[in-house]
Formats: sequence, C-alpha cells, structure tokens
Amino acid sequence: MSTLSSGVFAPVLTPFHADLSVDSGRFLTLCRRLLDDGCHGLVLFGTTSEANSLSLEEREGLLEVFIEGGVDAGQLIVGTGLCAIPETVRLTGHAVGLGCAGVLILPPFFYKGISDEGLFAAYAEVIERVADDALRIYLYHIPKVSGVAISAELITRLREAYPKTVIGIKDSSGDWQNTRMLLEDFPGFRVFPGNELIMLDALRLGAVGCITATANVNAAGLANLYAGWRGEGAEGLQETASAVRRAVQSQAMVPALKAIIARRNKDDGWLTLRPPFVGLDEERAGALFAALEGAGFTA
Amino acid sequence: MSTLSSGVFAPVLTPFHADLSVDSGRFLTLCRRLLDDGCHGLVLFGTTSEANSLSLEEREGLLEVFIEGGVDAGQLIVGTGLCAIPETVRLTGHAVGLGCAGVLILPPFFYKGISDEGLFAAYAEVIERVADDALRIYLYHIPKVSGVAISAELITRLREAYPKTVIGIKDSSGDWQNTRMLLEDFPGFRVFPGNELIMLDALRLGAVGCITATANVNAAGLANLYAGWRGEGAEGLQETASAVRRAVQSQAMVPALKAIIARRNKDDGWLTLRPPFVGLDEERAGALFAALEGAGFTA
Repeated sequence: MSTLSSGVFAPVLTPFHADLSVDSGRFLTLCRRLLDDGCHGLVLFGTTSEANSLSLEEREGLLEVFIEGGVDAGQLIVGTGLCAIPETVRLTGHAVGLGCAGVLILPPFFYKGISDEGLFAAYAEVIERVADDALRIYLYHIPKVSGVAISAELITRLREAYPKTVIGIKDSSGDWQNTRMLLEDFPGFRVFPGNELIMLDALRLGAVGCITATANVNAAGLANLYAGWRGEGAEGLQETASAVRRAVQSQAMVPALKAIIARRNKDDGWLTLRPPFVGLDEERAGALFAALEGAGFTA
Repeated sequence: MSTLSSGVFAPVLTPFHADLSVDSGRFLTLCRRLLDDGCHGLVLFGTTSEANSLSLEEREGLLEVFIEGGVDAGQLIVGTGLCAIPETVRLTGHAVGLGCAGVLILPPFFYKGISDEGLFAAYAEVIERVADDALRIYLYHIPKVSGVAISAELITRLREAYPKTVIGIKDSSGDWQNTRMLLEDFPGFRVFPGNELIMLDALRLGAVGCITATANVNAAGLANLYAGWRGEGAEGLQETASAVRRAVQSQAMVPALKAIIARRNKDDGWLTLRPPFVGLDEERAGALFAALEGAGFTA
C-alpha cells in the first residue's frame, strides 16, 4: 500500500441511471478523464460522491468495478467511515484488501456531543479489527456536515497510539486557522485541505495536496496550480482556481458539479441525483453558468 | 399491521457482550420486563438503542430474535431510517414483512441544509419502493442529533401524498412549541413526544402517548402517568415522572440508563457501550445515583 500519494485528488462524483441505480460506466469514464486531466489521485466515496446515499454493497461493488477497470489502486483513497463500527470495519478491510493507497474515515456521525475519548475508542476499534499493517488512515474533518469534529487532542492520541496507521487528515472545515494549526502543530502529518481557496497557502506550509470537489470539473486548473505553486505565477494560478471555485459554490455543490459535467459531455444522464439531493432548477442553473462564465471558465 | 398502538413506548436499550457483539439474551429479558412493567409498546432501534452503532444485519437479526422470542410484533415500532435509500428500504421492508405495527424513519441525516423538496423525495422513494399497503410510518424529528429537521411543510406534503402511510411523528425536538404546533395543526396525526417532561400537556392536546428513553428504567411510573392523566392525581404523577427524568438526564442519557439497569439487575454486563459512547466514570455515576435518590427513585 503506497502512502506517498500527493497532489490534487478529486472526490469523484457518482453518476446514477434514471432508476437511481449506480452507473458504473459513466463512473469509470469520469475517473479516467480526471486522471488524464491531471489529477494525481482520486477519492472514492467522499461527501461529493453522494457516498452517504450509497449502500454498503453499492460501495463495494463500485470499488471492484473500478479496480477491475484497470485504474491503479495506489492512486486511490477510499471513504469508508460509517456510523456503525462493524460496517466501517467491513468497508475499510475491503479497500485495504484491494490495495488502495489509503482510506478516509469519518468519525461516527449520528450521535453528537461525543467526547474525544469516545471518538478515539471508535477509531481504535476499527484499526484493531481491520488488523492489517497496510492500513493507512486519513481522518475526515468536515464538522459542518458530519456534526462531529476531529480535535487536535484526538489527532495527538491517535498518532501516539497508531503512528504508522493514522497518517493524515482531510480538513474540510473551511477554516484556515484550523488548517494552519494542523500544518504547524503536526509535522509529518499528511494534511489535505478540502478546499482549493487556501491551496497555495497550505502548500507553502507543507500540505501534501488538496482534495476538492471542484477537481471533478477543474482538474487541469488545479493540477496547474499544484505543478506551479513554487513558481512565479503561483498567485495567478491560485486566483484563477479560486474564481472557478467561487462560481461553483454559488450553488449547491453536488448538483452544480453534475450540471457542469452534463453540459460539458452533452449528457443529461449526469443530472440525476439521489434524494435527498435535488437538481438545480433552470434559474439556478442559469446563475451557475453565468457565474462560471464570469470567472472565465468554460464548462 | 395494527396502527392503533398508543401509550408509553420504550426505545429499548441494546445490550452488548464484552466483545461488543449484540447480546440478544439480555435484550429479550429487558423487552419482556418493560412490557410487564407497563409499557404499551416498544421501539426497537431508536437513538437510545445505539441503533446507529449497529450494522444493518445486526438490526435485522435482533428483530428476528425478538419476533421469534414471542413478543407481539403489533406492539413494535422499528427504527429503520438510514442515510442511504436502499438500506432504509431494506430495513423497512423487513420490519413490515414481520408484521411490526410501524416504522420510525429518520430523514437521511448525513447531508445538511437539505430542502423539504429533497426530504420529500427521499421519503417518497422509500414508500414507493417498499410498496406495501401495510406500511405505517412515523417520521422521526430529532434535529439536535440528526441535524435534519422535519418541518410542518414537509409533513403536510407527505400526508397529502401518502395519507394512509405517513401516520405520525416522534417529536424529540425537546421544544414544546413544536409539539404543540404538531398537535394543534395536524389533527389525526399520531404525535408521540420524545420526552415525558411534557407528557401530560401533550396528552391533553391529543398526543397518543410518549416514546421516551427513560421508559427503559421508569416504565411503571410512566405507565401510571398514562393511566391516570385524566384523573385528579395527574399533576402529581407528572411531577414524579419529571423528577426521575431530570435526574437521569443530568448525565449522558444512554450510559446513565445502562448504569441504572446494571445496578438494578446487579449485572455489570449492562455497562458495555459501543463506541463512540463511553461509560460514566465513578464520579459521574455517583452524581447520577445521588440525583436519582434525590428524586425519590430507587434504581
């Protein structure tokens, strides 16, 4: 299991057929395109992937399709964190067994007001049960969605107990102070900000890359920023990427990304979302594409 | 499928063996005791049941143990709401197929900021897929935990579309104004407050009962209140029940309830919780039992 993947990772959107079943054909096509366009790796089953709207078996099946489709498992980080430990263990063991580079694990996210002691116990139980030296975990900090934060104290405890296993974090707090704290206070910890608005600042402090929803539609722009962040044009590349980000997030993120891909591919099949998500209405879609045009971005 | 169950329902705690596997023996013993002590029905797999820490198969298995154990399925409301529609459909179909009186369905609870349109689509998809005339749904409104609220507008839409199916709600908002609104604005809708502090007030406005965590330890007291709420002693019965409630909720609810049952049964096996929950330390347990004693309640 490679642990060295760095760069721009796209948390891949999950396409659905009209009957809401997973569309593995469109999925594989998108994955290959993202890697062709410059992504260094892919995250399967992140928040952007509507992963929490997929059943456990659907996740397993799609990951297998993916590996059988010939994409290098070493370029993959797989989201495997569910509310119930037996299910997190099952998905995590499955991903590790297939040779994936890492797993991205949400804390158990139903119960709120949970202590760090309880979250430590939950992660520890998963690690002990998976019991595989190849396991490499990225913690998933996305408190505005999950409602359960990953504190510095929890990271410290987990790294002390499992230094070879708990190797990094995706910080989707949207809070630069938190990302900076992670980069400054946890040397050697692999920090992926979950948002490219702070990508350059984060890379300069040692971030290993960026895992961002908009990589689904702007892989090339983000790859350019990653390639050029040490150079003279870095600020301009950041501003260009940020403008696209701001335009996309002017609407609900996942519906907006699917609308962009549908237009790009002239394929309305991409517009299907699983409830509770709903598509953009005409007015919102119009506003999205106007904003993108204003940002100089061609969908 | 009976739809007429009313009264005090206990959302049954789930006991675990030391290895964290589900302990179906202790579970059945508790269920029978709660019914003997006066509960009119049971909710399996509510928030108090650590249901969100159980795998889908564990829920199915435990429900089957329960039915095979001879408890009347007509006294059961089963929590079946998960984040992913295919899984909610599977658990719901399973419970209906076993003859359970109703199901209690959380909204998909991972994604936040979801529109009523999206939540309607999610519930509608479940109902259409289960496609069983016997299906009776209670919506589960527990926004402080789930992070996703059930609005009056959503209830109106669901009742209009599925009047025979969407028959009630468990209101665990802890907000009397919301419970009163439900009782006043939705005549015929079966409202179970999720907290006995407002039980008498709610019954007087037409609530059909109460589903409350503390029924696990105070079934008799709550059954007395339900039996006597129209009589002269109602206020006193309410005050007695409320005092117990306040004492229990002075600590984390699920660990506190398990500590009380462990002491009552002289059985430390009841102290086991699944992470992310952790047990009360000695100080907190001491405070809990002192509070209970102060409330005149013998664990």
